[in-house]
Amino acid sequence: MRLTQTVQKGGCAAKVSAIELRKILAQVKFPPLRSEVKVDGALFDDAAIVQVTPEIAMVQTLDFFTPILDSPFLFGKVATTNALSDVYAMGGKPQTALAILTFPAADMDLGVVTDVLQGACEALTGAHCSLVGGHSVDDPTLKFGLSVSGIVHPEKIWTNSKAQVGDRLILTKALGTGAATAALKRSEVTEAEISEEIVSMTQMNQIQDLLGADLLSSVHAATDITGFGFAGHCQQMAKASGKTFQIQAASMPLFEKTKIYLEKGFLTKAHRTNKEYTAEFSNFSRLSEMQKLTLFDPQTSGGLFLSVKESEASQILQKLKTRFQKAQIVGDVMSQTSFAVEYLP
Amino acid sequence: MRLTQTVQKGGCAAKVSAIELRKILAQVKFPPLRSEVKVDGALFDDAAIVQVTPEIAMVQTLDFFTPILDSPFLFGKVATTNALSDVYAMGGKPQTALAILTFPAADMDLGVVTDVLQGACEALTGAHCSLVGGHSVDDPTLKFGLSVSGIVHPEKIWTNSKAQVGDRLILTKALGTGAATAALKRSEVTEAEISEEIVSMTQMNQIQDLLGADLLSSVHAATDITGFGFAGHCQQMAKASGKTFQIQAASMPLFEKTKIYLEKGFLTKAHRTNKEYTAEFSNFSRLSEMQKLTLFDPQTSGGLFLSVKESEASQILQKLKTRFQKAQIVGDVMSQTSFAVEYLP
Repeated sequence: MRLTQTVQKGGCAAKVSAIELRKILAQVKFPPLRSEVKVDGALFDDAAIVQVTPEIAMVQTLDFFTPILDSPFLFGKVATTNALSDVYAMGGKPQTALAILTFPAADMDLGVVTDVLQGACEALTGAHCSLVGGHSVDDPTLKFGLSVSGIVHPEKIWTNSKAQVGDRLILTKALGTGAATAALKRSEVTEAEISEEIVSMTQMNQIQDLLGADLLSSVHAATDITGFGFAGHCQQMAKASGKTFQIQAASMPLFEKTKIYLEKGFLTKAHRTNKEYTAEFSNFSRLSEMQKLTLFDPQTSGGLFLSVKESEASQILQKLKTRFQKAQIVGDVMSQTSFAVEYLP
Repeated sequence: MRLTQTVQKGGCAAKVSAIELRKILAQVKFPPLRSEVKVDGALFDDAAIVQVTPEIAMVQTLDFFTPILDSPFLFGKVATTNALSDVYAMGGKPQTALAILTFPAADMDLGVVTDVLQGACEALTGAHCSLVGGHSVDDPTLKFGLSVSGIVHPEKIWTNSKAQVGDRLILTKALGTGAATAALKRSEVTEAEISEEIVSMTQMNQIQDLLGADLLSSVHAATDITGFGFAGHCQQMAKASGKTFQIQAASMPLFEKTKIYLEKGFLTKAHRTNKEYTAEFSNFSRLSEMQKLTLFDPQTSGGLFLSVKESEASQILQKLKTRFQKAQIVGDVMSQTSFAVEYLP
């Protein structure tokens, strides 16, 4: 059985689109925000922050999706790396996770589910994160993910909203997991042929040990690139920070075959919805169709997108490159103009 | 559109059975447990406990399921009450929640999803719990739930495992939501006709304000009754505590029509799997078939099951009855014998 053949959409491409989500959330009257909540979902941050003591805040996040790969073990590992990433993107350290699991209990070999969990546990072990519980539902399609809790010092939180004029923008992983996994789902490639993308999706977004305390404090804002694509998450950070991001599309790191897969039309619904989501506030007018497609490509377990102090940018990039070979400086932060994001060819 | 007609199984009856779950988990090699983790899923507790400071621990839990009612608002409210219950069952106070949401984005009126979220927000507001984020997946069937975080003093945690010989056992809500909602799903009753069960499912398991500090400290162990039925959760608590629970089946609180619905055969798969799950360690030999069925009935947002100091039991019951009219003393804790649970007729 090939897991990707059991679902309509895989991975972060299965997210409900940002436009639909906005429509729904605009109608809901939410409970009051407790004073302990320092960051909630209002600015599209990757995780919530809840202060516990003056020195300790909890980072709370939740992510789950349908199979993006055929191998249950790798699917579990990618889903877990993706869920943990939201804690890292806030500057936190994961501590505990609860599993979110659905599968057709009567029709699916339990060994498949075991392998998904084992892949998850391998990634959790690497992140020193304990699996402390979860909930499983009997459902026609396999879905897996985690609610992850971590800790962060309240003064060292990274959010979407503090990019500063003059900052340089760094992306740590290549773009193109959406097209590659679409090709896999259509049986146009094998899992072995997209190993570059799989290695990237299982690479933990942990960078705190790479950068010392000084360099860490030069990171002004951060997010991770997932289902809404580079274009979607970049726009969210620019808007949350009240700045305009100028992006050099030519600097954007891609996997070796991303353009080939996109040329062949290995697209998902998210390529279209991410385009719609960014049409109003991002200016793509100087880009080629291919450049635009790479920016709309929905990433699963994509890289970190960092806004860093200009004077430290090249040193930070150099350190990041020792682990993330595809890391690049991809743009700059400017004062706010009519667009949140300006793309240069 | 009637929500219950869009899914095969509803509510906590859609849980993967405890037997299947045990088979899967037995095969998985888990990450090491961090020293901060004071309670994990090993003893089937309702939530995990992670210590943050000597005075503060976090309670972490996660629950989600398919529609158990036709009204989106009520479904959201019941799912939320059910998720919050796990925090209360550990002696904690909820603080923040993350939403788990799946729905068919192309086919479902967004107003349905809005109503589910609004029902959730009403329950969260009542619990002083903030909604701080979440994740949504485009999926053929609606599912909703929450990952909830709360706080508890590390010395005031209620677990499954500390029932003491001589304790009396109290159940706070009536049994029978499984049969009633099965009847609804089969269109044998309307939502209005099961209002007693719906009121119960939306009643928060908050009891800390009812019992003073003294009475709270007389609660030695606690859990909430959900998908594995009274029989399943009672057995889990007896085994975790290393005791035998003697239960008076005749004292068990039921909804007015629970027996009628069960007699008519409004059963779910969980009635069978809960029977299998408890066949080895619980002795039902003196009970009628009807009594057994009530014990296997899967509860959604069921009551708290408390093991309390014998001398305070009647005072605790009296206080509980001011809010939970169906609360009853249903049994006693004995030294361990060959069965974890002995049912008396």
